[in-house]
Amino acid sequence: MNVGVIGLGVMGRAMARNLLKAGHTVTVYNRTRSRSQELQSEGATIADIPAEACKGEAVITCLADDKAVEAIVFGENGIAEALAAGGIHISMSTLGLALIERLAIFHTEAKQQFISAPVFGRPEAAAAAKLLIVVAGDAEAITRCQPLFDVLGQRTIIVGTDPVAAPMVKLIGNFLLVSAVESLSEAITLLRKSAVDPKLCLDALTSTLFAAPAYKNYAELMLQQQYEPGFRLALGLKDVGLALEAAASFDVPMPVASLVRERLLVGIARGYQDKDLAALSLVSAEDAGVAILNAEQEKSR
Amino acid sequence: MNVGVIGLGVMGRAMARNLLKAGHTVTVYNRTRSRSQELQSEGATIADIPAEACKGEAVITCLADDKAVEAIVFGENGIAEALAAGGIHISMSTLGLALIERLAIFHTEAKQQFISAPVFGRPEAAAAAKLLIVVAGDAEAITRCQPLFDVLGQRTIIVGTDPVAAPMVKLIGNFLLVSAVESLSEAITLLRKSAVDPKLCLDALTSTLFAAPAYKNYAELMLQQQYEPGFRLALGLKDVGLALEAAASFDVPMPVASLVRERLLVGIARGYQDKDLAALSLVSAEDAGVAILNAEQEKSR
Amino acid sequence: MNVGVIGLGVMGRAMARNLLKAGHTVTVYNRTRSRSQELQSEGATIADIPAEACKGEAVITCLADDKAVEAIVFGENGIAEALAAGGIHISMSTLGLALIERLAIFHTEAKQQFISAPVFGRPEAAAAAKLLIVVAGDAEAITRCQPLFDVLGQRTIIVGTDPVAAPMVKLIGNFLLVSAVESLSEAITLLRKSAVDPKLCLDALTSTLFAAPAYKNYAELMLQQQYEPGFRLALGLKDVGLALEAAASFDVPMPVASLVRERLLVGIARGYQDKDLAALSLVSAEDAGVAILNAEQEKSR
Amino acid sequence: MNVGVIGLGVMGRAMARNLLKAGHTVTVYNRTRSRSQELQSEGATIADIPAEACKGEAVITCLADDKAVEAIVFGENGIAEALAAGGIHISMSTLGLALIERLAIFHTEAKQQFISAPVFGRPEAAAAAKLLIVVAGDAEAITRCQPLFDVLGQRTIIVGTDPVAAPMVKLIGNFLLVSAVESLSEAITLLRKSAVDPKLCLDALTSTLFAAPAYKNYAELMLQQQYEPGFRLALGLKDVGLALEAAASFDVPMPVASLVRERLLVGIARGYQDKDLAALSLVSAEDAGVAILNAEQEKSR
Repeated sequence: MNVGVIGLGVMGRAMARNLLKAGHTVTVYNRTRSRSQELQSEGATIADIPAEACKGEAVITCLADDKAVEAIVFGENGIAEALAAGGIHISMSTLGLALIERLAIFHTEAKQQFISAPVFGRPEAAAAAKLLIVVAGDAEAITRCQPLFDVLGQRTIIVGTDPVAAPMVKLIGNFLLVSAVESLSEAITLLRKSAVDPKLCLDALTSTLFAAPAYKNYAELMLQQQYEPGFRLALGLKDVGLALEAAASFDVPMPVASLVRERLLVGIARGYQDKDLAALSLVSAEDAGVAILNAEQEKSR
Repeated sequence: MNVGVIGLGVMGRAMARNLLKAGHTVTVYNRTRSRSQELQSEGATIADIPAEACKGEAVITCLADDKAVEAIVFGENGIAEALAAGGIHISMSTLGLALIERLAIFHTEAKQQFISAPVFGRPEAAAAAKLLIVVAGDAEAITRCQPLFDVLGQRTIIVGTDPVAAPMVKLIGNFLLVSAVESLSEAITLLRKSAVDPKLCLDALTSTLFAAPAYKNYAELMLQQQYEPGFRLALGLKDVGLALEAAASFDVPMPVASLVRERLLVGIARGYQDKDLAALSLVSAEDAGVAILNAEQEKSR
Repeated sequence: MNVGVIGLGVMGRAMARNLLKAGHTVTVYNRTRSRSQELQSEGATIADIPAEACKGEAVITCLADDKAVEAIVFGENGIAEALAAGGIHISMSTLGLALIERLAIFHTEAKQQFISAPVFGRPEAAAAAKLLIVVAGDAEAITRCQPLFDVLGQRTIIVGTDPVAAPMVKLIGNFLLVSAVESLSEAITLLRKSAVDPKLCLDALTSTLFAAPAYKNYAELMLQQQYEPGFRLALGLKDVGLALEAAASFDVPMPVASLVRERLLVGIARGYQDKDLAALSLVSAEDAGVAILNAEQEKSR
Repeated sequence: MNVGVIGLGVMGRAMARNLLKAGHTVTVYNRTRSRSQELQSEGATIADIPAEACKGEAVITCLADDKAVEAIVFGENGIAEALAAGGIHISMSTLGLALIERLAIFHTEAKQQFISAPVFGRPEAAAAAKLLIVVAGDAEAITRCQPLFDVLGQRTIIVGTDPVAAPMVKLIGNFLLVSAVESLSEAITLLRKSAVDPKLCLDALTSTLFAAPAYKNYAELMLQQQYEPGFRLALGLKDVGLALEAAASFDVPMPVASLVRERLLVGIARGYQDKDLAALSLVSAEDAGVAILNAEQEKSR
């Protein structure tokens, strides 16, 4: 397929690479041009303006936030004006639901297609084409894009025809993740201050009742005091914020979501915004007066 | 083995039955004698006083709370005075850590053995001998009791020699469980009030990132509006309360634990104390102004 | 003085009336014209467009939210283009801090003056000219407007020259108020379910340690089960939301603010959005399984 | 009157002194005898055992916690056996409601009188006889003790005949106080990190809507970074814990109380247990990444 990729952060670059490896024709655009050049040697065409990345059947956006997407879609030389009728805009960023709705309405009126396809997975998973892709939109358009999803992730889950369904699943997944991580943090802190071996306890639980990737991964990161992102704390705050915003728009109280938002804010105020979500265990430890050395500090002792 | 079972609630009865089926010699004691008689026809000997259930190599207690255990152990004709030197007291109830410590000290001084062995699993799991048994205590005593654990559960996890370690793992497991259930409740309520199909969303998440029994089971119960216990809300409150008590004794703040304790209290104040933990989704729905019919109500429409 | 009043809700009308009574020349504008006509008979001039209310020395805006203010200031025939150099825009609404900053910058560049002057006080207080007015902005401009403030409130507190300071004080005041009301709600519910007379207890506390209007007023409303607004629950949610937004912009966690936001959302989901803040005591009572009749229901028994 | 005082902590000593100054005959008992001797020179008789302090018309207990009271009342040579029929036990400690009930029942059966009379006020207030005394119990017994209350406090509030009513008012008062202090802490932290002067803002609020001693005192302590107790953080935790325990016994959720309990635990884990409640503002500041120097540190810069 002939496809554009707009936004070459860690995730976007990994995805563009996997598309190239699989033999797709890829045009890339990034505001900072240097990142595009990296991919040129691997076979990508560089676009100087977003519009040039919209010449193929589909264009993927993989951008930081609502504002960036709005600029790229509705701005000068943007997707809105450049994408042909029948062309597909695949949004893989995690956006606010209001913007998703606006994009869905706009593209429909413009006779373009819009698929929302946020992903679960850390950068390593993106590089290894092991993302979980949650997809919502027009069924026929999704079928056309399936070859793309197949080389980007290990699994595509289609959750409906309304594009809003996919980011909702993403926001809820991330809310569940952040609460699980906060609960694990509190548990580990209690274990650390009592006589009980955290590793033994968490191994028991994450090999039985909680034998899920979310628990296994984060328990391990915390026990090894590994806070390299991964899933940045600041991104966690953004996503829980979007979930709370969506919830408020439906008059839905979410007390745990509100609480974990506060925990994330504490982490950010303490300077952990660019650490992994696992750093919530640092916040919890500090609140309990436990000094936790991170891996680097331990090495340099 | 020759073993006593004291406390014939749903869990205790199921365990006594599995011991009998496996050919062990079992003496049972229950405050209300009628429950013992049920088991007589299946081969159990009935004890009229706790002491009579302490004649074998080991005696299992499976009682509701700290108070019941204190009465049975330290009361008249209790385990304390009746158990022979070298005899093993296996406590399978979820108790406060202070009582566990007191029992550990007492039995050691009395040259008796003490193993704490709380279990994870709903009554069906107990009946099917599929419990997860978390064990802590003297290694040699645990080895001697392994044949018992083998017929009661599908897996035994040994978490240390200090008897306090096992209930700590149990409390932490139940804290993680209750928080996961509360988070799921909030998620489902948001999905219900938005346009997104809760089943589709939760299937996606519980088959990937959250592919663990805790999430799968409770998501299913909530979606089917099944609130038969299972794990009673009132028991959830007891266990989270014990976890908070343990945490306070070590000066460990646990904000999520405190919050879910409040949610459980709301459930109990609304009359759901004997419903399953899954009824937290009713609390969440009511807080969002969503009327949820339970399975029975739906049928009778 | 010759002054415009834009926005004739309950508060705006009361203020316009007090200005008229005091002999000021008042031009009023409201989107729905019928409300303006009410005031015509009392001496006000009706403006057909916002610009016509900007001919005097100062124009007061008293509007529902950020959006309404943006439209009135920057929209067609808006304040931005109509206010003369040196003219003063007095914003008495509770707005987000970002908008206040934007207005401050805009008016400064346009050589106009900008004073932010949010108020504390229920509609009765506005009618009785007993508002507390918190003012921030250019000192000389404030001095010129003092005659206006004198007929609108019983006290003016100047909190700085940066217009952002006044709404910050307002937001913090309302945050403190909502948390006090939630705490009072929890206290009253506990008293109701125990043997202790809520009135006796609250009289003791609000005549000593908590002898402040905030506590006295709300304790009385709750005890009399009076939920007529007053300070609408929905407005409480808006203000706590703005406080949390301001806090997040400075990386400041506010756990109590987050919690009371959730309580307000529950109240709104249960249909109390147009009741007074005192209705938080209904939410609390319902959570504890206590049925509270409101005054009307009691009458109709 | 001839009266005993048992428990000579800061509060107990101040009260004994005021009783002596007013001319009452006072016998004092303290576990550590040295504290009694201090008062001997001021006219007190020293008791070697609690029973000797029970010879008069009334005996006041002013002890740290439930355990201490139980020991003094029901222990060897305790009040239970020593107090004559018709003698009055005045409990001025803040105790759990269960113990109050037990004492009420016991003394009634023993034909003794029991008055619960917890106080509000910091040690300075006790010394200056400016306590607020909340009293519940038999009306006639209260009348007999009024002369004592008159020299201990500036105001006595009678809240019912059931002794449990007074500690309930005390617990609720302290819950309201701790939540107000936590809310103030969050507010001050937000003000500190924004451009707005905390003093100006709090002066505005505590001279109007929140013109109550609770707000004035704690706002001042926080602004002056004065954390000398006063009301120790550890005592705040104890009282909020008792309030939550009482609430749970009536199935009453108290989300704010649960939250502030967590905040107090954080403070204690950070080593502030013996600082004043005002140190909650340190916790809040640290959570927001603000370094607050306390008065001593500032001096030594």
